[in-house]
Amino acid sequence: MEIKPVAAFEPPYYTVVFTSVKNARAYEGGGYGDASVLMNKLVKDVPGYLGHENATTPGGISITVGYFKDEEAIRHWRQNMEHQRVQKKGRAEWYESYSCHIGKVERSYGFERPGDAA
Amino acid sequence: MEIKPVAAFEPPYYTVVFTSVKNARAYEGGGYGDASVLMNKLVKDVPGYLGHENATTPGGISITVGYFKDEEAIRHWRQNMEHQRVQKKGRAEWYESYSCHIGKVERSYGFERPGDAA
Repeated sequence: MEIKPVAAFEPPYYTVVFTSVKNARAYEGGGYGDASVLMNKLVKDVPGYLGHENATTPGGISITVGYFKDEEAIRHWRQNMEHQRVQKKGRAEWYESYSCHIGKVERSYGFERPGDAA
Repeated sequence: MEIKPVAAFEPPYYTVVFTSVKNARAYEGGGYGDASVLMNKLVKDVPGYLGHENATTPGGISITVGYFKDEEAIRHWRQNMEHQRVQKKGRAEWYESYSCHIGKVERSYGFERPGDAA
């Protein structure tokens, strides 16, 4: 499967930047993996969801970016009960620290290497 | 050194989300490493620079987020000649695809595990 960044959409839309550092427990039977799989699945059902992607440096920072049509979509995801349950568990067990930045996209652009079309 | 996400600042400020997939050449003598070190250094001199961070999944997506005080700071960085030179080289040689999303942060929050203060 070809790996590709989420596309640059036509503004306005929203980015939710979630950056975190997790402890070793998260990966050692702490249940983070299962929770992550579930969240990756559930977020796609949010009305107004546009996409999301994650990058994780081994032993370092993890950055997840969610793309949403509007504030209503973000509110919908924030109020999801499963999401809230996992967030609470994350603060109790997995996260050493995290930051979240919710921004309204004003400009976007992308690049794709010519000739790489499948 | 303790690894920590960039803090959640007081809105408004800007996030520049840059997501990319690079080819193997970038890492095999393609000069990406040196260029990356230089960019990480130069961006800190931009007036209105607040911080930046990167996460890279080995063999997968890389996400860099830059945090800036205002649009003027982003313009300053975009017009930096060394930055422009590296972007051009990146499109010619390293990047398979990338997306960039520039957003004005409306809300932010953070978490730090209690008792972890150094």
